[in-house]
Order: sequence, then C-alpha cells, then structure tokens
Amino acid sequence: MREALAGGHLLELFAEPGRQPDLEAAARGVGTPVVHVAPKVMAALADTVTPQGVVGVATLLDVPLGDALAGTPRLVAVLEQVADPGNAGTVLRTADAAGADAVVLTDGSVDPHNGKCVRASAGSLFHLPVVAGVAAADAVAALRERGLQVLATTGAGDDDLDDLVDAGELHRPTAWLFGNEAAGLSEAAAGVADRTVRVPVHGRAESLNLATAAAVCLYASARAQRR
Amino acid sequence: MREALAGGHLLELFAEPGRQPDLEAAARGVGTPVVHVAPKVMAALADTVTPQGVVGVATLLDVPLGDALAGTPRLVAVLEQVADPGNAGTVLRTADAAGADAVVLTDGSVDPHNGKCVRASAGSLFHLPVVAGVAAADAVAALRERGLQVLATTGAGDDDLDDLVDAGELHRPTAWLFGNEAAGLSEAAAGVADRTVRVPVHGRAESLNLATAAAVCLYASARAQRR
Repeated sequence: MREALAGGHLLELFAEPGRQPDLEAAARGVGTPVVHVAPKVMAALADTVTPQGVVGVATLLDVPLGDALAGTPRLVAVLEQVADPGNAGTVLRTADAAGADAVVLTDGSVDPHNGKCVRASAGSLFHLPVVAGVAAADAVAALRERGLQVLATTGAGDDDLDDLVDAGELHRPTAWLFGNEAAGLSEAAAGVADRTVRVPVHGRAESLNLATAAAVCLYASARAQRR
Repeated sequence: MREALAGGHLLELFAEPGRQPDLEAAARGVGTPVVHVAPKVMAALADTVTPQGVVGVATLLDVPLGDALAGTPRLVAVLEQVADPGNAGTVLRTADAAGADAVVLTDGSVDPHNGKCVRASAGSLFHLPVVAGVAAADAVAALRERGLQVLATTGAGDDDLDDLVDAGELHRPTAWLFGNEAAGLSEAAAGVADRTVRVPVHGRAESLNLATAAAVCLYASARAQRR
C-alpha cells in the first residue's frame, strides 16, 4: 500500500479507524481521500481472511509494450500464460530484485492486478513497468528490435545455463521467457526464441518450479551484466 | 506417490477403483497392499480439495543428523524455523535439483511430512536425506565438524554473494542457513555461522522471498563446485 501511495497510484483509501493511522495520515498528506468503514464493511471489501484494516483503490498499472521498452532495457522477464497469481507475483518481485527493466505477461496469463499477485509481488508491481495481454510473438519481436536476445527457459532446452554463462553469452541484453507452471513453455513461444535454455538439474528432481527457475536465470543475467 | 513407491517408502495404498490403475498395479507388483475405497471415503482421507484418486501411507522419512551427514557432504540446506509448508517443500525441491546432499529442518520448523510440504517438494522429499527437529546450533556444529563452511543468508549479511563467488569461496563444501519467511534468520543462528551473506538486490525490491533466495544461493554453490 505504501508503494502504491509513494508511486502516486493510490486513488482512495478505505480504512478501519485506528488500525493504520500512519498510512491514513500519509494518504491525507498527499490529498488522497480516506473513507472510514466498519470492520464488517472491511471484511466484505478485502479478499483476504485476515484483512489488515485498509483497502486501497489504485490506478491500473499495466503500460503499453512500447513504453515499457523505451530507453535501453537490458533485462526483461516475459511470463507466457502463467496462470497462478502467486507465481506471477513472486517472479515480479524477483525480477525487480534482479534489476530487471520490465516484466511482460502475455495474453492468457493472470491479470497482474489480481490481489494474490499484488501481495506476492510485495510492492514490486509498483517498481517496474508491467505489460499485460500482449501476444508472445509480438513481445519477442519488440524485444529483439530493441536489441535484446530472447532466451526461452524449458526443461529440455538446447543450451545449459552454466555453459552460456561460461561462454559470456549472458553479458548481452537479455529477455527471458518463462512458461506456464504446469504445461511449461508453449512450442510456439520456444520456437520464436533465439535459444532454449535449461537450468541444470544435478540431483534427482524432475524439474524446478517456475519461480525457482526464474530466480536462477534472472540472477545469472544480473551477475553476468555486472561483473 | 511414485517416488514413495520407488523408494520403498509406501506401506499401503488406498485407491478409488479405476482412477490410477497403473499406480495400483505398480504397488501390487512390489507387494504393497491396495485397498479400494469409495469417492466419499477418498474425500475424507485426502487433504486436498480435488483428490487424485489415491492416498498412500508412507514411512516417516526423517533421518538422524549423523546419518544424513555420513559420507562427504558438499552442499547442505538448513531451514531454521521455516513455518510455511509450501516454502519448505519448494526449498527441498530446489536443494534436490541443485544436487544438495541433505536438508535439515531445525526445531520450530514445519514437519516435512505435512501434506503441503510433500506436494510442494514434488517427490524430492524421497530423493535426499531430510533431518527434522534438531537445534540450529547442534546442526551447525555437526556440519562444521564434517568440514563444511556455514553461510547464513540474511538481507543485512556482511558479504555479498557475488563477491564470495568471485573470491572462490563457494568452491568449498558449504551449508546454507535459511531463516523464517517473516522474521528472517534468528540472531542466534546468524551468530553461529561462519559468515552472513546477502543476495544482492539491484532493483527496488526490499528483499527476496525465502525460496527465491535459497534458489540463488544453492545454485551459486552448485555452479562454483562444478566449474
């Protein structure tokens, strides 16, 4: 909520009196209307079992692809048909931490404004440009036009992540494609990428979960681009 | 379930007739009793909303610390008071994928046999030795005695992960301590480690979530120990 307020995205705040006085004061301080509501009303407004005493109304946050890729983006995460809001929010948070310039959710992905996604992103939704609802092929074309290589993460990828690191391939501006948590990346999306990449599995696990694979790939790029 | 069966951990299988015939046949093939139950009974037995048609009874899996550290362990994950079963299971899966030799859950952590933990581990609970309910100080002492350095992950850690990689410090056998998802690592646990390490945050995120930080650290070690 503080992130929304700090970013100028908060339009209105509903609050149970006395629960979050500092936040109320901060909202009033920047001219955001604050409406007091009873606990029963809060329970109906909030979509969590244990509401925190405030519900905010924020602007929609998604931006057009062209705006998100303005400047010289060096690291972008693309979620292709990622359905689980918790996963999407976690990847958003990780992309922010890894210093990514933007996150793109293709059509068929969860709405980034979903409450669970917002909470899992821990404020990161307000930190970097988020694009929603573009076709994967259009996103890839735009990313390539901006000079980014497009790497698709899949368990059966042709290139081992560590080999790419050793070869210095991750120094380049890079967009990572991550696929649906159950079905994986679509063949169409893998087909338009410059390379398909597998995170090495050294033990007996069959695969990594989506957010884990994204963390390893995004941090490998972050390190390679800085060292 | 197949992992439990393959590991010889499955004692008995309750099944709705016709739902998982291959699994039933596999269980019978190794002499595991199969009991047919009606859907209503399955709904009562299973702790998920949409049961998969089978419920297995498995042996307890945790092993004594000394057994888990027998041999020459090179990579171990220690979860200190990690309360969320999904997080614990995800870290188990990641540790397995990174080639870890064991996972230790200190006292105050979630029971690794918790259904959500088992499911989030995606079979990895059956792949590597899991130790439960030891004091963090005892785990650290045992790990150090086996020749592992003990690195504690915390947002305010003294050493930057990338600096340790550059200095070649991650080539050594290493145990990683990861703390509670909300409170972070306890001061006591951070105090007994050889170093406190922070995963760099390049963007505006305040922190990484537990499973993400664990993925980055465990994969940094896996890479350093192999390259």
